[in-house]
Amino acid sequence: MSSQDLRNAKGAFDLVRDDLVAIEREFGAETQSSVHAIAEIGEYLRAGGGKRIRPMLLLLASRLFALDAAGRSSAIRLGAVVEIIHTATLVHDDIIDEARIRRGRPAANTRWGNSKCVLAGDWLYMQAFKVAVHGRNLRVLDVLIDVTQQMVEGEFLQAERLGRCVSVDEYLELILRKTACLFSVCTRLGGILAGATPEQEEHLAAYGRSLGMAFQIVDDVLDLTASEDVLGKPVASDLREGKTTLAVIAVLEKCTPEERRLIETVLREGAFRSVTHQQILDLLNRYDAVDIAMAQARSHAAEAVKTICTLPDSDAKRALLWVPEFVVARNS
Amino acid sequence: MSSQDLRNAKGAFDLVRDDLVAIEREFGAETQSSVHAIAEIGEYLRAGGGKRIRPMLLLLASRLFALDAAGRSSAIRLGAVVEIIHTATLVHDDIIDEARIRRGRPAANTRWGNSKCVLAGDWLYMQAFKVAVHGRNLRVLDVLIDVTQQMVEGEFLQAERLGRCVSVDEYLELILRKTACLFSVCTRLGGILAGATPEQEEHLAAYGRSLGMAFQIVDDVLDLTASEDVLGKPVASDLREGKTTLAVIAVLEKCTPEERRLIETVLREGAFRSVTHQQILDLLNRYDAVDIAMAQARSHAAEAVKTICTLPDSDAKRALLWVPEFVVARNS
Repeated sequence: MSSQDLRNAKGAFDLVRDDLVAIEREFGAETQSSVHAIAEIGEYLRAGGGKRIRPMLLLLASRLFALDAAGRSSAIRLGAVVEIIHTATLVHDDIIDEARIRRGRPAANTRWGNSKCVLAGDWLYMQAFKVAVHGRNLRVLDVLIDVTQQMVEGEFLQAERLGRCVSVDEYLELILRKTACLFSVCTRLGGILAGATPEQEEHLAAYGRSLGMAFQIVDDVLDLTASEDVLGKPVASDLREGKTTLAVIAVLEKCTPEERRLIETVLREGAFRSVTHQQILDLLNRYDAVDIAMAQARSHAAEAVKTICTLPDSDAKRALLWVPEFVVARNS
Repeated sequence: MSSQDLRNAKGAFDLVRDDLVAIEREFGAETQSSVHAIAEIGEYLRAGGGKRIRPMLLLLASRLFALDAAGRSSAIRLGAVVEIIHTATLVHDDIIDEARIRRGRPAANTRWGNSKCVLAGDWLYMQAFKVAVHGRNLRVLDVLIDVTQQMVEGEFLQAERLGRCVSVDEYLELILRKTACLFSVCTRLGGILAGATPEQEEHLAAYGRSLGMAFQIVDDVLDLTASEDVLGKPVASDLREGKTTLAVIAVLEKCTPEERRLIETVLREGAFRSVTHQQILDLLNRYDAVDIAMAQARSHAAEAVKTICTLPDSDAKRALLWVPEFVVARNS
């Protein structure tokens, strides 16, 4: 990151720092259960951290307009809600992916077993909705329930497509459901709380969607190219779990049948056994696949910037204009 | 069942037959998903049947008072919601219990695998809430979200206690959370929809709770004593899954240390290997354990009857007064 980027990053975070701290506190308070072990799993997941990009987007979007004190406390509550929903999806996804590691630590399922993690995920979903219902806003509930179902459907489609080479369109549908929909809900909710017009709300939702697409494409590229230290999980997990992501699809569209078989072998074996990670990296280089994927990410990021350019100028808007750049420039 | 019972059973069902048919249709329509395999799992679960006792209780409770057309269609919608929630808990419970058979057919997890069933359960929960939100009644959502969380906590507590001899109090807490809470919500929701007074609503909730306790105690007795044909699943599944239920606890309170070891062996081995099912049945006979458990069930059933005796007389009330008798007299 350049020093300019660093200043911008600091600026964006400074703007909502107090509220992010409040969200963290709310998340901690709202994952207490009378059943001790549920509280323990909840705390393990919360303490595992994460970028908290979803709550930050919700907060920044809510700051675009005049936000009263009630709106601000609603934004804090819903910021916690979207992060709890995100956490619940991760717990269930880790069971499905048989993940061993998440964010540099053992995944919850390796520590508590699948059964308890199925229930812990269920509990977190219910808790998220319980906190959301406090706001007595049915529109907000519609949006949250709908997006959660979209994410579950996305994960289901992914499970059905595991181990085979998916098309670009199938890949884009998956990341839309798995990631971009929730990003879009975060920015939309910020707008709803701050009294955005229907048109402004749609712009914000479109911004979140494009940003989410860019975010997931970059995440998937990093999964292939970054080191285990940086990722906090083993490299190329996606490929070994049977998932073809955009850079790999770019290779598949141009490579020879023999090269395709290398990729199919990794997908089938679920490991770098007959084929090495380096052989896959060589293929990505040979076909400029990372550049192709990153160009798509940059295009979604640019789209995000464009959708909010008509909104009134403010610190929050400048922060939101900078986030897409940051998302495509990040290396972790 | 006596011919009197049969007449009563027919009378209760006749009273709400049309609405139960409408609920079945709603359940079918509301478990459609754009993701084909989710719809397929949903349909498999719906077609598997079940007693539909929860929707029936909701309908009967709603008929105790003057119910307008809007209230009636709300009762149908919420009848489908409680059955979808119940179905979602069964799907996740079957994963946790590693159940092979449910209602006389392969459990969904044996057919679609655990991963897809985790997601199908998640999807059904979201769908239930989505349908419930249509009613735009926040009070109803509070109640539904709370009870779902109670059930998940109950299942979690059960998972923690697997394989050990639980106390009567622990057992009663588990069946309260796992079964009686949802029964209680069904009768409460019927009251809410029909404009019951707060006091009447509490009576109805207490009725459902006591009935649910009786229902689950009988279910657990039948699991030990009924045949596989009648149960639609292998006999004594609970014990082999490591769950001690009321009749077994009654034995444990009076038996010799050697006899206790027989029970502990089944819990530990998760099968009738060193100890036979007949040996366990002999223990139950020796200590009148089934009679003791059934006496408790009858006591809860009598409590249920008592809680609604002050409500205005009607066909629906007569049906609700009869249901507890039926629940303790049933043999499947």
